[in-house]
Amino acid sequence: MATRKQKTIAQHAGELELIAGIRKRVARLGQAGRGGVRLGIGDDCALLRIKAGEELAVTTDLTLDGRHFRLDWHPAEAVGHRTLARGLSDLAAMGARPVAAFLSLGLPAELTRARRGQKPWVARFYDGLLALAEAHQTPLAGGDLAQSPLAVADIVLVGAVRAELALKRSGARVGDAIYVTGRLGGAALGLELLAQNNGKPRRAAHPELETALGPHLYPQPRLEQGQTLSRRKLATAAMDLSDGLSMDLPRLCAESGVAAEVEAELIPCFPGATLGQALHGGEDYELLFTARPGTRLPKAIGGVPLTRIGQVVARRKGRSVVSLIREGHRTALAAGGWEHFGARG
Amino acid sequence: MATRKQKTIAQHAGELELIAGIRKRVARLGQAGRGGVRLGIGDDCALLRIKAGEELAVTTDLTLDGRHFRLDWHPAEAVGHRTLARGLSDLAAMGARPVAAFLSLGLPAELTRARRGQKPWVARFYDGLLALAEAHQTPLAGGDLAQSPLAVADIVLVGAVRAELALKRSGARVGDAIYVTGRLGGAALGLELLAQNNGKPRRAAHPELETALGPHLYPQPRLEQGQTLSRRKLATAAMDLSDGLSMDLPRLCAESGVAAEVEAELIPCFPGATLGQALHGGEDYELLFTARPGTRLPKAIGGVPLTRIGQVVARRKGRSVVSLIREGHRTALAAGGWEHFGARG
Repeated sequence: MATRKQKTIAQHAGELELIAGIRKRVARLGQAGRGGVRLGIGDDCALLRIKAGEELAVTTDLTLDGRHFRLDWHPAEAVGHRTLARGLSDLAAMGARPVAAFLSLGLPAELTRARRGQKPWVARFYDGLLALAEAHQTPLAGGDLAQSPLAVADIVLVGAVRAELALKRSGARVGDAIYVTGRLGGAALGLELLAQNNGKPRRAAHPELETALGPHLYPQPRLEQGQTLSRRKLATAAMDLSDGLSMDLPRLCAESGVAAEVEAELIPCFPGATLGQALHGGEDYELLFTARPGTRLPKAIGGVPLTRIGQVVARRKGRSVVSLIREGHRTALAAGGWEHFGARG
Repeated sequence: MATRKQKTIAQHAGELELIAGIRKRVARLGQAGRGGVRLGIGDDCALLRIKAGEELAVTTDLTLDGRHFRLDWHPAEAVGHRTLARGLSDLAAMGARPVAAFLSLGLPAELTRARRGQKPWVARFYDGLLALAEAHQTPLAGGDLAQSPLAVADIVLVGAVRAELALKRSGARVGDAIYVTGRLGGAALGLELLAQNNGKPRRAAHPELETALGPHLYPQPRLEQGQTLSRRKLATAAMDLSDGLSMDLPRLCAESGVAAEVEAELIPCFPGATLGQALHGGEDYELLFTARPGTRLPKAIGGVPLTRIGQVVARRKGRSVVSLIREGHRTALAAGGWEHFGARG
């Protein structure tokens, strides 16, 4: 390439130091993992083992500056956290346990340099990512790094789930009840507050704002909840809410060949969030799942409430796939969430 | 995000059509695969199975416009081919068989649109990628798509290899012979020819130039060779040559705790390539491996020659890790290849 010979020795040295530092931090984390990683960073591939009778669950999520975050709005730690959370949430949606994560990172050179005595952006990005990885015992087993004019991060999660117990989008049947974990609309509310403050939440920080920004900046993947639903065979279908209920529920319906009714009064809104934010706001990363009507579900799993929001019904010609029931009236719930360019949430 | 509501319905429709088309092509490929993919594109994760007694090999490689290819130089088919070849080559280096590939793709909108009655760039990219995938029975089991100002592709390969038989970088011992597959320097030669023609090889195309550009535009991952070396326990260590012999051999030495001597007269140069291109040129994607001195190696595997180029020696203070022996003289073989910003080849 044209750029092939343009690097200075100093740049090289800085990069190697950065790699060495990451390797050291990741090595500690690898040892803290569950022994699934047999060979980590430093060879052509990582080597992983899963248990007999398990299937692999694999997901990749691309995070881009200007599309999934803004360098001028989001703290670097939050970008790292959110990058990993997107992948972990996909594992949660299958009921899988994390085995290892892989991160491909492309960054402008200035984000890898210390500035005014402060940690480089990339170190804070890893702080956020590795803290969440540690919380969920997920070793970072490899990846790729490149200099790039655009900040881009692709996260790969490899998980394991008992064969036949994976939660799919395709298992919902007419008569099933529809549930969500946690509360909805918190991420959309946080994003709005961030936008109102022009991306400077910390200058005006007060406890209430911090709480309100939490679901947007630091969403919690519902791994324990997904694994419990899978292990105890409580759910017939599941997915994670990455693009908003009004965008994601039709996808679950499409894969299952069914339709759905959502009852507005039952939606668990995040404190301060509007019903619109709860229905259409993306990035809550709560689980959406269905269960047979006779299934006895706990009220909460790991402190996170499970709330029934509607029911699975048969498809009917001329009626929208998802209906919203509000004060006795039925309306079509049109997708108002944020669809990525691609199909995978 | 700021872009959240900016998309028109027409854009959405085009994107959904694109996804549907890819899904259809990939579904065909999935069925042609080896049955390891149990659930492909369309759910939160793909589900994969490997055989009892196998380990997983996982690798990710980031490909960026301006760094790993140039939109104005490289045909879209070649960019697709090279994107997948990088990942497959990492599996080859471990002796693993491919189970599934995942692609995260970020593209400027204009690359997804047909222009002057021609296929959109992205369709030709997939033509190149899927042709190589089919040749190596590698189903594309998922990924992510996003609009991006920079063209970026992250390829993830999941492979399987019999436990304990994976070829690692760390197994070389003093006295081992050092080998390479195929011929070296072809990719560097092709890149130089491409640069001389200012990225327009096809206008001046003649058969000789086509042949010379082959190794650069369409490198062949050495999967059969790696799998044979692993299965027949012929190699003590292996890696793929992505950044050039002078950059990659020191990495193998570092992981094994040894040094190496390379004999200039033994290097198998690609026809027309200089010794410098063979030693320092990257992206040949041949395998570099070591074998015990008594090991009887075939002259070729699958028509690709194996050539001894030197030997593993003990580290000596004050001597460079890799020495070049040329006409009886020893010199340090300094890394002159192309180091990416990152460590993984």
